[in-house]
Amino acid sequence: MRKELHFELSEFHNRLAAVKKEMARRGIDILLLSEPPNQNYLTGYNAYSFYTPQMVIVAQDHDEPIWVGRFMDRVSASMTTYLAEDNIRAYPDTYVQSATLSAYYFMAEIVKELGGENARIGVEMGGYYYPARGHVDLTRALPDAEFVDADLLVGWIRLVKSPAEVAIMRQAGKLADVAMKRVVDTVEAGVRECDIAAAIYHQQVSGTAEFGGDYPCCPPDLCIGERSIAPHAAWTDDRLPESTVVNLELSGCRHRYQVNLARTIVVGKPSPSFQDLSEIAIEALSVGLEAVRPGRTCSEVESDFRQALARHGIKKESRIGYPTGIGFPPASGERTASIRNGDETVLRPGMVFHMMPGLWLDNVGITITQSFVVSDTGYEPLTTTPRKLFVK
Amino acid sequence: MRKELHFELSEFHNRLAAVKKEMARRGIDILLLSEPPNQNYLTGYNAYSFYTPQMVIVAQDHDEPIWVGRFMDRVSASMTTYLAEDNIRAYPDTYVQSATLSAYYFMAEIVKELGGENARIGVEMGGYYYPARGHVDLTRALPDAEFVDADLLVGWIRLVKSPAEVAIMRQAGKLADVAMKRVVDTVEAGVRECDIAAAIYHQQVSGTAEFGGDYPCCPPDLCIGERSIAPHAAWTDDRLPESTVVNLELSGCRHRYQVNLARTIVVGKPSPSFQDLSEIAIEALSVGLEAVRPGRTCSEVESDFRQALARHGIKKESRIGYPTGIGFPPASGERTASIRNGDETVLRPGMVFHMMPGLWLDNVGITITQSFVVSDTGYEPLTTTPRKLFVK
Repeated sequence: MRKELHFELSEFHNRLAAVKKEMARRGIDILLLSEPPNQNYLTGYNAYSFYTPQMVIVAQDHDEPIWVGRFMDRVSASMTTYLAEDNIRAYPDTYVQSATLSAYYFMAEIVKELGGENARIGVEMGGYYYPARGHVDLTRALPDAEFVDADLLVGWIRLVKSPAEVAIMRQAGKLADVAMKRVVDTVEAGVRECDIAAAIYHQQVSGTAEFGGDYPCCPPDLCIGERSIAPHAAWTDDRLPESTVVNLELSGCRHRYQVNLARTIVVGKPSPSFQDLSEIAIEALSVGLEAVRPGRTCSEVESDFRQALARHGIKKESRIGYPTGIGFPPASGERTASIRNGDETVLRPGMVFHMMPGLWLDNVGITITQSFVVSDTGYEPLTTTPRKLFVK
Repeated sequence: MRKELHFELSEFHNRLAAVKKEMARRGIDILLLSEPPNQNYLTGYNAYSFYTPQMVIVAQDHDEPIWVGRFMDRVSASMTTYLAEDNIRAYPDTYVQSATLSAYYFMAEIVKELGGENARIGVEMGGYYYPARGHVDLTRALPDAEFVDADLLVGWIRLVKSPAEVAIMRQAGKLADVAMKRVVDTVEAGVRECDIAAAIYHQQVSGTAEFGGDYPCCPPDLCIGERSIAPHAAWTDDRLPESTVVNLELSGCRHRYQVNLARTIVVGKPSPSFQDLSEIAIEALSVGLEAVRPGRTCSEVESDFRQALARHGIKKESRIGYPTGIGFPPASGERTASIRNGDETVLRPGMVFHMMPGLWLDNVGITITQSFVVSDTGYEPLTTTPRKLFVK
């Protein structure tokens, strides 16, 4: 069976060593990873199977991680991870969406096999794929273990990307660029919103002549006309009118690494005030980007940005950036650092952020953004789409 | 502001009445709905915002449901729900992915405002969007309330679709059909896997000349060659060889209602044994479909199917069907009934299932499926793609 690994074994080993080191620091014996990006990071696992219970278990006393999932996905584990077959465990289909059988009991048995009955066990309490009932089942099945919240333990390690990861994210950035170009080419009065969305998906996935894209973590935010002020609205079948605003956030995704990109596209002639607002947004974004440097904090970057906006009398409540990397639905953002007031995370080379200072005002929205990796001296943009208001 | 409602108000009122009746039967005063499909079902809410904490609260003593979400998504709540503005509540952005502030505390305050400090509160313990930490925060903030598991309370009500819902699902079925036709037209030796995936997305979303599609709940399962036995594998950039097997599951999604469809497509000449196996799969599927009738149980339907397979010496472990309806990522299947041995759910007109008796054997997989609605006398297919092995 051909193995589909996108990184050298040494890279997986380094990642595991970093996680075990942090586990040791926190006194965690066994780590139960329910988040698909963390499972992918530590083993390579990639299949759309995380809607049924699935874990990667890291034990201090066990060399490799152990993947646990549904029996029919075992073959994906063999194909996409570097794990030995012994470390791939699968529960039978009778556990799937059953009222009486819990896959978490199955997982608890593996924890016991690892000698974890009295262990200190880390779980991802704030993750998307650790449901309240899973926690109840696990703590019931392991009554003598001590459970501690290890949410984002792996996330903070993932925040700094390796050169091999950055290389993949450059490709993801190219995918975002070609998708945005396709949209700018497609948007015009009379085109159905759904046909614009279809063009985005097509280009995200067909990609370039050199490489294609994966499925994105989330649909494009295609917010048009009245919905241009609703950041996460769904598209409709309506045709674009002669004059309207399109606020679009899309992404490129390569080997599950995601780079995001948003632009505002105006059909017809933008009003002078809208044009002015877009220039303010672009200027503040540039100020924010120029503020990026290793050693500075997220909060300091946000402060520079905020002051640039304030010079024009504009206040923005929400954060202006989040990290991206390995992404699975439902969200592309990592949940660690935020570029926001008070976030004292210190920037380091290899961190990747999407700076997305969308201005969502009462009746108008503008979103012009930039994904970048922190470099040794500043930032390297991951997309090359011009930071401007597109007018069609 | 234009309201985007896809159902009459009376339909929303009927849904709410059914939920309140079931709450009363279980002695539940306040129901906290974290599952996006349930939020959509009861209010119409539709935006891609559920990756931050979001609830719909149903209280016996409060007329309308209350939507609670992130401040920037308030505008989507106004646009897509029938709720009065008083019943749309939003927390500030400082709560988003914060280490110190929990949106669940914000929600607990609303529960208190509804007089729920000592209430019996239903929560969706097994849902995708009720993280373990959310449950901890809520029970801490409401120490005198009694929390009970109300997972699938709304799900079981959703299982029987109204005529208006079935009408939308017929459209979703057409979207699945046109997408499958596009794939069959596209697949041939030399085409990149990612370009097939791109064509699927494009057709799912651009849809037909009459109507377009929404984003699907999950990517197509496009399992090719060696990965044709991995049901949830990701596609690659590889080109199709002269001879290979493509196992594909895709969907059509209209106003968030999803209909699934899977087919096996062979490039080149299928082996006689593969051809035989496909005929067995089709025959067993037909037997399963003919077994569908109001009043029979899911288990009885599965039994007929299983016997049809057994006549050819084949055993299948996994369930052969699941219900679909309103779908949001990560999964399109409702988590209530399964067409499996021992499931005593009685079929009723309006229930929609995807019968998907995929045969995943050791080194070969075949998947030929049928979505249907239970009719007054049997079943009505929701897709018209022929149930056959496609050969290209």
